[in-house]
Amino acid sequence: METGRSSEGILSEEMKQKRDEIIELLKTAYFMELETVINYVTNSTNPDGVRAQEIKESLEEDIQEELSHAQQFASRIKELYGVVPGSMDFEAEQGYLQPPQEQVDVVHVIKGVIEAETGAIEHYTRIVEETEGVDPVTQDMVIAILHDEQGHRRLFEGFLREYQAEGKA
Amino acid sequence: METGRSSEGILSEEMKQKRDEIIELLKTAYFMELETVINYVTNSTNPDGVRAQEIKESLEEDIQEELSHAQQFASRIKELYGVVPGSMDFEAEQGYLQPPQEQVDVVHVIKGVIEAETGAIEHYTRIVEETEGVDPVTQDMVIAILHDEQGHRRLFEGFLREYQAEGKA
Amino acid sequence: METGRSSEGILSEEMKQKRDEIIELLKTAYFMELETVINYVTNSTNPDGVRAQEIKESLEEDIQEELSHAQQFASRIKELYGVVPGSMDFEAEQGYLQPPQEQVDVVHVIKGVIEAETGAIEHYTRIVEETEGVDPVTQDMVIAILHDEQGHRRLFEGFLREYQAEGKA
Amino acid sequence: METGRSSEGILSEEMKQKRDEIIELLKTAYFMELETVINYVTNSTNPDGVRAQEIKESLEEDIQEELSHAQQFASRIKELYGVVPGSMDFEAEQGYLQPPQEQVDVVHVIKGVIEAETGAIEHYTRIVEETEGVDPVTQDMVIAILHDEQGHRRLFEGFLREYQAEGKA
Amino acid sequence: METGRSSEGILSEEMKQKRDEIIELLKTAYFMELETVINYVTNSTNPDGVRAQEIKESLEEDIQEELSHAQQFASRIKELYGVVPGSMDFEAEQGYLQPPQEQVDVVHVIKGVIEAETGAIEHYTRIVEETEGVDPVTQDMVIAILHDEQGHRRLFEGFLREYQAEGKA
Amino acid sequence: METGRSSEGILSEEMKQKRDEIIELLKTAYFMELETVINYVTNSTNPDGVRAQEIKESLEEDIQEELSHAQQFASRIKELYGVVPGSMDFEAEQGYLQPPQEQVDVVHVIKGVIEAETGAIEHYTRIVEETEGVDPVTQDMVIAILHDEQGHRRLFEGFLREYQAEGKA
Amino acid sequence: METGRSSEGILSEEMKQKRDEIIELLKTAYFMELETVINYVTNSTNPDGVRAQEIKESLEEDIQEELSHAQQFASRIKELYGVVPGSMDFEAEQGYLQPPQEQVDVVHVIKGVIEAETGAIEHYTRIVEETEGVDPVTQDMVIAILHDEQGHRRLFEGFLREYQAEGKA
Amino acid sequence: METGRSSEGILSEEMKQKRDEIIELLKTAYFMELETVINYVTNSTNPDGVRAQEIKESLEEDIQEELSHAQQFASRIKELYGVVPGSMDFEAEQGYLQPPQEQVDVVHVIKGVIEAETGAIEHYTRIVEETEGVDPVTQDMVIAILHDEQGHRRLFEGFLREYQAEGKA
Amino acid sequence: METGRSSEGILSEEMKQKRDEIIELLKTAYFMELETVINYVTNSTNPDGVRAQEIKESLEEDIQEELSHAQQFASRIKELYGVVPGSMDFEAEQGYLQPPQEQVDVVHVIKGVIEAETGAIEHYTRIVEETEGVDPVTQDMVIAILHDEQGHRRLFEGFLREYQAEGKA
Amino acid sequence: METGRSSEGILSEEMKQKRDEIIELLKTAYFMELETVINYVTNSTNPDGVRAQEIKESLEEDIQEELSHAQQFASRIKELYGVVPGSMDFEAEQGYLQPPQEQVDVVHVIKGVIEAETGAIEHYTRIVEETEGVDPVTQDMVIAILHDEQGHRRLFEGFLREYQAEGKA
Amino acid sequence: METGRSSEGILSEEMKQKRDEIIELLKTAYFMELETVINYVTNSTNPDGVRAQEIKESLEEDIQEELSHAQQFASRIKELYGVVPGSMDFEAEQGYLQPPQEQVDVVHVIKGVIEAETGAIEHYTRIVEETEGVDPVTQDMVIAILHDEQGHRRLFEGFLREYQAEGKA
Amino acid sequence: METGRSSEGILSEEMKQKRDEIIELLKTAYFMELETVINYVTNSTNPDGVRAQEIKESLEEDIQEELSHAQQFASRIKELYGVVPGSMDFEAEQGYLQPPQEQVDVVHVIKGVIEAETGAIEHYTRIVEETEGVDPVTQDMVIAILHDEQGHRRLFEGFLREYQAEGKA
Repeated sequence: METGRSSEGILSEEMKQKRDEIIELLKTAYFMELETVINYVTNSTNPDGVRAQEIKESLEEDIQEELSHAQQFASRIKELYGVVPGSMDFEAEQGYLQPPQEQVDVVHVIKGVIEAETGAIEHYTRIVEETEGVDPVTQDMVIAILHDEQGHRRLFEGFLREYQAEGKA
Repeated sequence: METGRSSEGILSEEMKQKRDEIIELLKTAYFMELETVINYVTNSTNPDGVRAQEIKESLEEDIQEELSHAQQFASRIKELYGVVPGSMDFEAEQGYLQPPQEQVDVVHVIKGVIEAETGAIEHYTRIVEETEGVDPVTQDMVIAILHDEQGHRRLFEGFLREYQAEGKA
Repeated sequence: METGRSSEGILSEEMKQKRDEIIELLKTAYFMELETVINYVTNSTNPDGVRAQEIKESLEEDIQEELSHAQQFASRIKELYGVVPGSMDFEAEQGYLQPPQEQVDVVHVIKGVIEAETGAIEHYTRIVEETEGVDPVTQDMVIAILHDEQGHRRLFEGFLREYQAEGKA
Repeated sequence: METGRSSEGILSEEMKQKRDEIIELLKTAYFMELETVINYVTNSTNPDGVRAQEIKESLEEDIQEELSHAQQFASRIKELYGVVPGSMDFEAEQGYLQPPQEQVDVVHVIKGVIEAETGAIEHYTRIVEETEGVDPVTQDMVIAILHDEQGHRRLFEGFLREYQAEGKA
Repeated sequence: METGRSSEGILSEEMKQKRDEIIELLKTAYFMELETVINYVTNSTNPDGVRAQEIKESLEEDIQEELSHAQQFASRIKELYGVVPGSMDFEAEQGYLQPPQEQVDVVHVIKGVIEAETGAIEHYTRIVEETEGVDPVTQDMVIAILHDEQGHRRLFEGFLREYQAEGKA
Repeated sequence: METGRSSEGILSEEMKQKRDEIIELLKTAYFMELETVINYVTNSTNPDGVRAQEIKESLEEDIQEELSHAQQFASRIKELYGVVPGSMDFEAEQGYLQPPQEQVDVVHVIKGVIEAETGAIEHYTRIVEETEGVDPVTQDMVIAILHDEQGHRRLFEGFLREYQAEGKA
Repeated sequence: METGRSSEGILSEEMKQKRDEIIELLKTAYFMELETVINYVTNSTNPDGVRAQEIKESLEEDIQEELSHAQQFASRIKELYGVVPGSMDFEAEQGYLQPPQEQVDVVHVIKGVIEAETGAIEHYTRIVEETEGVDPVTQDMVIAILHDEQGHRRLFEGFLREYQAEGKA
Repeated sequence: METGRSSEGILSEEMKQKRDEIIELLKTAYFMELETVINYVTNSTNPDGVRAQEIKESLEEDIQEELSHAQQFASRIKELYGVVPGSMDFEAEQGYLQPPQEQVDVVHVIKGVIEAETGAIEHYTRIVEETEGVDPVTQDMVIAILHDEQGHRRLFEGFLREYQAEGKA
Repeated sequence: METGRSSEGILSEEMKQKRDEIIELLKTAYFMELETVINYVTNSTNPDGVRAQEIKESLEEDIQEELSHAQQFASRIKELYGVVPGSMDFEAEQGYLQPPQEQVDVVHVIKGVIEAETGAIEHYTRIVEETEGVDPVTQDMVIAILHDEQGHRRLFEGFLREYQAEGKA
Repeated sequence: METGRSSEGILSEEMKQKRDEIIELLKTAYFMELETVINYVTNSTNPDGVRAQEIKESLEEDIQEELSHAQQFASRIKELYGVVPGSMDFEAEQGYLQPPQEQVDVVHVIKGVIEAETGAIEHYTRIVEETEGVDPVTQDMVIAILHDEQGHRRLFEGFLREYQAEGKA
Repeated sequence: METGRSSEGILSEEMKQKRDEIIELLKTAYFMELETVINYVTNSTNPDGVRAQEIKESLEEDIQEELSHAQQFASRIKELYGVVPGSMDFEAEQGYLQPPQEQVDVVHVIKGVIEAETGAIEHYTRIVEETEGVDPVTQDMVIAILHDEQGHRRLFEGFLREYQAEGKA
Repeated sequence: METGRSSEGILSEEMKQKRDEIIELLKTAYFMELETVINYVTNSTNPDGVRAQEIKESLEEDIQEELSHAQQFASRIKELYGVVPGSMDFEAEQGYLQPPQEQVDVVHVIKGVIEAETGAIEHYTRIVEETEGVDPVTQDMVIAILHDEQGHRRLFEGFLREYQAEGKA
């Protein structure tokens, strides 16, 4: 279906190789977001304490946002004529976001979130560079998601700082 | 915290062993729901075709429902003094729900969903039995989720039947 | 489709006879609710008078509730692999809920509603007993409906009492 | 109550005979709509299959519409000083809308709906004619309902056509 | 402005006389509705008692409806190139809707409302006849308003009947 | 009913005379608001022109506000044990708000509105003074209404100024 | 499909010729509304100035209304067994609604709208006459649309008058 | 009005020629969207059949989206100091989207939509290139619209595939 | 915290004694409202009969209003640097609002409500007097609450009157 | 009223004694919930500090939930033919929930809430046991409420833990 | 415009001097609120940390409230025939609300807010005194705003206390 | 916190200087928006006249938009590790937006708005250029805001034109 159009940018036949590269990057992003969903459900339930409450609520609100990111990545993969992978291809990588020994150890969770967001920012920055000039639609979509992740990390860095000031992190 | 109360049913100290068994069952249920979330995102994006459209929409609506099931399981684990596991403990098991070779092969998806729902029904039926008389709160919660899954499987069995009648499944 | 699963409770093959009994009970319940819908439309329109107004509004709100009960019964019949019957199988039984001679005879309507609710309570109590231990999903659904009917009859018994105190019933 | 007014059109005393004729027509319409409600609940639950899904949803949405038609007919009967009949006067007539032998036989349902709508259109067309010039309020109300039914039949005729084109009807 | 169009029905120049007749009828209707607004505000505040409560609420809801009728009449007068009259041309006529001696005399209010509605029904029936075949837009609008008034009178006749049955009216 | 309470402020028996004075002031206010309703319906329909549009919309929004003022006055009369008067007691006084000769004469309408609002402000200022120290509830309610009227007159004075600046008023 | 029914009014076989005439009239109406949509989008964007603002907003709100009229005409054509035409059959006719030389020339736009509405009123009046007694459903639908158009033209005639009074039109 | 500003990017005086080129491209886009509106209204009404239902609904939802695109193009033309053209400049070009011979021929409609979307994608891709580095605001707006169109075409390509798999296209 | 400010009215240090007096009055008011909440829940459930229905609904709506009054009193106590008392300081005083012997004895409930409201009116009138000129914020808040209670008592006095007229109270 | 029905479970005449026992348990539960309402209003207002903020909001949201529990208990008492008690029967028992000496002593409040919830859990667990097999409707209702209380206590135990970890509790 | 009316209270000609004094007070209040808006935007963004989160959200919600206060002051200035000043007359005065050295220094922000609220309370208390007996409308409006500010300061005093208890402030 | 990451674009350590430049530009933008907020509140209150009404409403709607722009700038400053400035750093610059001598001088306001928007457009165009290739997130955000400002200026240029055509500007 997608053959023989040369004036459609990234959807043109001659762009196939580039498109496949982008699809691979998007698949990685797709699983990053889904792993984040899992760990945010986990970490929005486990911690104890008043201060943890703030963080749990913050994570719980983010679950929907991250899930929606995953769905956007999936849709874009489809639009670029790729196939969205299934759960058997999934491999967990966020070792730093696993539940801590002690459920009141909120610092552990905060650092884990910062790690996760940093990984996402680096990966999405790369997608922005790779798509520059060849696929403005994907680029645009990823910039918006990147903005979300930057703001989110900034918030958790602020949380961390407070604990550092108190000598707890 | 939970020591020394003997009139609180499943939360009593002497019920600890039973409680741990239930927690294990709930952890399994927790990951079943999360894997379903992943595969429903995937399968609500991949398939092509008009008839697939009906199925894609049906799955997309279910994503929220299944996610909410997962969150209920997580909360209950917490309430029973357990720890909700993180993504590193996750192991994919729904081989039958991976994307098919051919994206118009809707029968593959339908059968996969029925398999998934059957697994869930069996597992939840067991939880209902295990909690009988000892943890009515968990039982009540699981019966409601079980109802959802039965209704959902019934719908997809109907979908399958049509294809069988047409000799396509 | 439903063959060969032995760990699924009421949906197992060996439970077929029990399932058929439950289906018959549900069919009766299905028509009871639909007849109630008819008579509530009728009786929420016919009566005259200020006091009747209160009763008419009460019945009008109930129409949606009773219709939804009917739809729940229908869905459950289907989930148990039964066939929901059509209008030709319907036989009216609520002789006591027919429009009275005199449209201001509200007591006639009140007594009719109490009769209808009593019939429903008896029938649903029986379903709760029949499904005990074999079909918790149906049981759970019927208990909730039973609660609605008990509350509704109680309200109309209160209405009747007032008229009795005034020597009009 | 309604005696002695000569300039009120259909509500005047000298119009009593005409009014009674209209009331009879409205009672028939009232039961037609209620029988449709019953059979749409039934037929929005029974059928199996992906394509059936479209039809089931279409019928399910119609239940509320048809119920509202019934309530309009009831109100109009009341306004014309008639008495809305109860369930004992109800006689099922839509033999063609009973559940088919085979639950995947969607054509059976489609034809049944067309039959039902055709009956309604004929009856309502007659009411429009009978009320011409004597009861514009009833006429107006029935024209609007007639419009709904025409549009609905047209939709199901389109469904039927597709099956005819495939040689299945 | 409105000269020289001959194919526009009631808005044509040669229809001017007929149009003026209709405008006069609409002005009367306009003031009828406004007087009703005044008296419904009054009578939805004055009466005392539990039973009066029902009637007060019924009238209060009607205030908006009657006001909206007045605004529709005003707009139609304008559309027919007439001038909507001001308060100096207003003359009260609903002597029967004035506050009674005794504020618990609900029957007085009920009868007043029936009188008012009867007057409106007669006047609007006349407008329907006058516009027959020459101004379908006005006719259509008035039929809808007529329907409201018929239903409203019917309701209050029912209220009256109850009091008559109790020998209080 | 209201006898024998001496510590209830304006509702005490010994305050009866004062209360009757306040009721008379409130009755006048009641009819002022209702006449405004009538004339705003009229003047929000009659005028022609783009600039008139602004004024028509402004008046149309005010209809609801003024009606609500009337309802507040009525309720307060009732609470003070007075009787709200009916339409036969109504006498039109806003000669300046009648429809002008020429429907594009917007200045006429603006001046009429200012006159009406000025009358209201003077009357309500008096009520505020009369109730000072004896009936804080009425005073409070009237101050809020007074604020509305002051703001409204200010707006129309601004409209007038523009026309004066253009030498048209 | 539509053959062999003799008691269904305009949908009967013997009414086919009449039905075709009505369909032709509806097709013309369909394109009139669509051309209006185009020109209202254009004219709600182009004009400059404060007074133009009022007109632009008025037109922008009308876009949805006119589009909905077009969709109603399309649906009715379909219900009468006709085929809705595509864009190739479209021919622009509203020369008077093209953008003026000078974008502050609001009078040009006002006159264009009046012309367009006048054309619509004449055409719809004819449809009302043609369907009299043979197709009450179409007639009813068109009368409602006719009312909208009459009210809209009346508004713009008022706008024009103001400019005429100022000697600018 | 727009003269003499040199630091405002595309709105600067020295960018006038470039701006005019962009305006021409936007005018073409404007009419493409409007023609799509017309043909989607047509094609969301004509087709028959269960499967067509899905496509009709899909098109009906798109009408609002395409209309909103047209309004965005119009606004941008205005912002760049151009004049939005009227209906007389409109020329239909989507021959492939005209109603087919046979109303159950859904494949015809699907192919027409793909053609239309392809045309749009090519034209908008060109606008994105032309505005690169000179008018980021227009570019941003068009990228977002381009994304919509790509997603939409992708959906209909999926529909087409299914029919191809069945050998019907 | 609150020391050393002399120009802040009631919050100034030199106003401490006056403030303490006001706080005591507010505490009494706080418990009056809470006792009312309890008794309105009780009395909105117990009574039987159609007429009782009106009163039960009236009380049920009031529960929220009275609870909100209690919360306003609590907040104001806090703002004046007082401490809100707990349940151990609560002493029931509304002997007249206890459930009657006979559940159809509605007059008992009506009289109880009037007693309760009278007590509130007297107490709040006193607060209004005490705060005159020294704490306008508290005064303003209490006047608004006083208005609610006056209106409420007036309604129940009307209910009582009806029963008196019938010789039942 | 409730005599002579033997097949209605808990509502049967021979179940009267059991029913009375359940009613007594429900009355105790009714007052427990109401006392909680009082103390939550108090404790959601008194405490000071950033961390207290979280707890105050948590309690404020719970007020509605606890009130609704009380209303459910009241309704069920009524449905079982009991009489809901009034405020004179109320005796405060939650000594641990009274306001502390120091308003920043949040730990005092947290412990009080845990005490209150523990009492509720024990009492409701007993009701669940008492109703086992004889009154499934009450049992079902109480299990749901029990679930709320367990979740709530769990939350506050988490709060407490944090303070314990910091050595403040 | 405002000349020659002597019975309109503060709007009378002889009250001009008093009115000018009030206007000056309102201008100061206007700028106080606007400066608060600026500093709340700033301080709801800058601070870091979990506890800061609570304060940031509290400030962010207040932005809308303070802006609305500013708009009320502006409207009242206008109603009293004054001119609302522009930004050139604005002078910053809240030195204590500038961003601190260290972004985790939350105590600095809390103290700044208390200072700002104290200034507002003093100024508004003065307006209440100045308007006593001469301009009840302004007084009423300012009392309501004063209430907001008192409640807000009280909340932040509580925040401060907690830090004092911990020896951090 | 932000050290040591080299693959994160603008957030990398080596981009610090560039980041500081961007922060300075954003601070200026932040105060531009806040000054606009102040002046729009002022100018949406002061002007008199019918035509002014349109402009006042337009400005009032814009207040929220401009405030939201300010909040976006503040958030972005924070995300880039800058500190948002407080009110002491604010310096008014929009001399052209101060209230005119004569409150009916609308042209003065229009010209002021155009000046303000032109300043914003120039400044934001510069930010877009400065961030090109180094900070796509900021660039994207500013382009969207730039679009708003361009559209807004265009509207007011149109307003101005009308007055110029009338020789008043």
